[in-house]
Amino acid sequence: MKSEVIAKLRKEIGDGKVHTSDDALDERRFDYWVVSHLQNWRGEELPRPGVVVRPESTEEVQAIMRVASVSKTPVVPYGLGSGVCGGIRPDPSVILVDLSSMNLVREIDETNLLASFDAGKQGLEAEEAVAALGLTIGHWPQSIAVSTVGGWVSTRAAGQFSTAYGNIEDIVYSIEAVLPNGDLVHLGKAPRAAAGPDLRHILLGAEGIMGIVTGVTLALRRQPEERAYSAFYTPSLAAGFDAQRAIVQSDWLPPVMRQYDASEVTRNFRDLTAETANDRGLLLMVHEGPASRVAAELEAVASIAAEHGLEAAPEELGPHWMNGRNHVPAWRDLFERNLIVDTIEVSASWSQIETIYDDAIASLLEVDSIIIASAHSSHVYRTGINLYFTFLARHEDSADMEATYLDCWRRVMEATARHGGGVAHHHGSGRLRKDYIVHDLGETGVSLLRSIKKAVDPHGLMNPGNLIPDE
Amino acid sequence: MKSEVIAKLRKEIGDGKVHTSDDALDERRFDYWVVSHLQNWRGEELPRPGVVVRPESTEEVQAIMRVASVSKTPVVPYGLGSGVCGGIRPDPSVILVDLSSMNLVREIDETNLLASFDAGKQGLEAEEAVAALGLTIGHWPQSIAVSTVGGWVSTRAAGQFSTAYGNIEDIVYSIEAVLPNGDLVHLGKAPRAAAGPDLRHILLGAEGIMGIVTGVTLALRRQPEERAYSAFYTPSLAAGFDAQRAIVQSDWLPPVMRQYDASEVTRNFRDLTAETANDRGLLLMVHEGPASRVAAELEAVASIAAEHGLEAAPEELGPHWMNGRNHVPAWRDLFERNLIVDTIEVSASWSQIETIYDDAIASLLEVDSIIIASAHSSHVYRTGINLYFTFLARHEDSADMEATYLDCWRRVMEATARHGGGVAHHHGSGRLRKDYIVHDLGETGVSLLRSIKKAVDPHGLMNPGNLIPDE
Repeated sequence: MKSEVIAKLRKEIGDGKVHTSDDALDERRFDYWVVSHLQNWRGEELPRPGVVVRPESTEEVQAIMRVASVSKTPVVPYGLGSGVCGGIRPDPSVILVDLSSMNLVREIDETNLLASFDAGKQGLEAEEAVAALGLTIGHWPQSIAVSTVGGWVSTRAAGQFSTAYGNIEDIVYSIEAVLPNGDLVHLGKAPRAAAGPDLRHILLGAEGIMGIVTGVTLALRRQPEERAYSAFYTPSLAAGFDAQRAIVQSDWLPPVMRQYDASEVTRNFRDLTAETANDRGLLLMVHEGPASRVAAELEAVASIAAEHGLEAAPEELGPHWMNGRNHVPAWRDLFERNLIVDTIEVSASWSQIETIYDDAIASLLEVDSIIIASAHSSHVYRTGINLYFTFLARHEDSADMEATYLDCWRRVMEATARHGGGVAHHHGSGRLRKDYIVHDLGETGVSLLRSIKKAVDPHGLMNPGNLIPDE
Repeated sequence: MKSEVIAKLRKEIGDGKVHTSDDALDERRFDYWVVSHLQNWRGEELPRPGVVVRPESTEEVQAIMRVASVSKTPVVPYGLGSGVCGGIRPDPSVILVDLSSMNLVREIDETNLLASFDAGKQGLEAEEAVAALGLTIGHWPQSIAVSTVGGWVSTRAAGQFSTAYGNIEDIVYSIEAVLPNGDLVHLGKAPRAAAGPDLRHILLGAEGIMGIVTGVTLALRRQPEERAYSAFYTPSLAAGFDAQRAIVQSDWLPPVMRQYDASEVTRNFRDLTAETANDRGLLLMVHEGPASRVAAELEAVASIAAEHGLEAAPEELGPHWMNGRNHVPAWRDLFERNLIVDTIEVSASWSQIETIYDDAIASLLEVDSIIIASAHSSHVYRTGINLYFTFLARHEDSADMEATYLDCWRRVMEATARHGGGVAHHHGSGRLRKDYIVHDLGETGVSLLRSIKKAVDPHGLMNPGNLIPDE
């Protein structure tokens, strides 16, 4: 990092927002990707950004981008660092733009159900701001307390209530962003438009490679009149999927539908199911909406469940899940117990999903050090469903963990691709998954993405090395 | 058009699919834009494409695109010509690619509710193919019998049942397209993905400027168990909007919600409302879904309507609208009666929409020759609603019609933009609206669109002059 660049940044946004201390640089070397944490825990040297800037306004982000653009300095946008795919791995050539000081609620519009936030607003704070008015964003990623509204957009996040309320692309109304050329764009003006391609999608899921998201307006909901839970044991994953498919294809939409395999039932719900689970899976649902519709849905869902051979499970399971649902594991505790763990989310059509489950689990179980390979589904569509795999491996020597980790990932990615599934449901791609996205996009799709990236960021300044496979 | 290009096309796809007859060229000079029809009716010379090709496979489209690319010949994709914004205005330099011979149902997947069509498949035929299996696309543009599945994608179409079933971008699962460089892309693989930006949106709404859509896979629904209607008189547009807002913001979603102003009630529903309308507006709804949910919705909607001072209207209004809803007017009949007419669809937040209505109608009524200026809403969102204006003007001399027409458009576009609305709800932009989309995108957004267009189509071959404002 040239000292002139740092001096220029200080001049543009003020000394107090430009940080070069060891602490400031060390804290922002990586996101929540297990591999970075493992390397760090093992004492491997991870590169630091050249400088950390903490802008407090969109104008300051523009000023930073102009400095970067003129000096051809790479830029990495950073929210709260909760990404789990290695989207953040800066090096000393990089200006790291930490957006967490841009954390204002800009406006809440109760008539039109719109809320605008600075991109660095923490998710749970955003939700609480609208909840105080009887509203909800309806977007509940597990990371809600450690992620930002801008990060949701940049990673194409999905929330736990997505089956009825949609994923982030269904909730975003407009996006304010600074492009690599310094242009400020406001994309998304009206409830819906046919004014050319929807350019919000250049930034949704771009993981920092197209520009810096500085503000987000979300379309809210009124808090539901009623919430209810239902829970059923599934005699097999297949029976559970069939019941879920029947429910959503009959046009019932419980916001939450989660099916756990028997391994995860034992692990997560033992206290409540010890006497009744009998090695079965579990389908948990949360039902929300006007009371009369919730009542109708509960009745319909119970009837469909019975038709598919599902049996009622303890009622407390739903609230039990709700209370623990935002827990984020601490990697270090696991490393210290000789364990490495991760989750991998993929999606596929109803006809493909069981084969992907069987094949991925079988392949994971071939890994010598594997202790656990399991999955649940957590996001349901008319056309298919996701799977959220968990693997856990044990190594006495932590030097072996990284290779095992990458091998497990490769096995699940390849099993998914082999049977026609999509390799990335909602964690994004980062550096971890970038070599697999060709399975989704094809070679020509990757070329198209590369062309667009080059058009938006001709000098390749934005988060270099992330998301797009190397040529 | 150079004769070598035509010869090359003949060689690549066969003589029988390359047309240069007067009839073939004359028939495809323009789409359903009133201005083109007016000019043609008045005997003005409208340019013809240089050649018409009618490919029967994706491979043939690729071959055509390669010929165009090598010879730097412009290309205009053409479906059934039902666009109403002048997206089609070829000239003799152009290869017009008529996709209507690519009209196969490729696959209908009843398990995963997916149907794949050639892009040139006529909309109603596509719907009938899935309807035979108890399924529905759920996309009912007024043009359904005269538009193609590929055209729906290219124009970002909206259907009459959009309030529950979404617009085309919510229904499209994947898009197959030939890019200007000849690459074949398949965009959209899984029910949902976070594998970088969603590149389907490069083609959705591109109106032929980014490539040629050759195939579309749509996510279907099962036909609903129940359909019911409701109809209410609205004492004012404001009261009607408030009731609609209360309905959707309470999370009820009648697929169809249409509010007509008093002028349109008289014009469209006189036979059924002559004794009861009393210069009031009308809110029509269609309710669909599981029977128990429809029953709950009907009850809730009646109660919300009553709270907002709406009164029950004759029950036959819903079925009456359903039966006549796909009527498309014949411009020529109107010209012959000295009339010029068009519709203009915009959208805005709930707080903006009444002002836009008032201002646009007042402005239209300032036009000397205007006879009718009215509107209805037909697409509802949590955050706002659309308006679908109709204007009708009378000129003894048809030479005056075009100026009046453009003046009326300008008035509605400017009234919409002045109050913060979106200038294009679902007809697309074409050549008619391209100078107004800056109101939606901003100058920097237009620049971004231009950069992406240049990246995808560096030689500017695809539908030149369409959609993007001239520099």
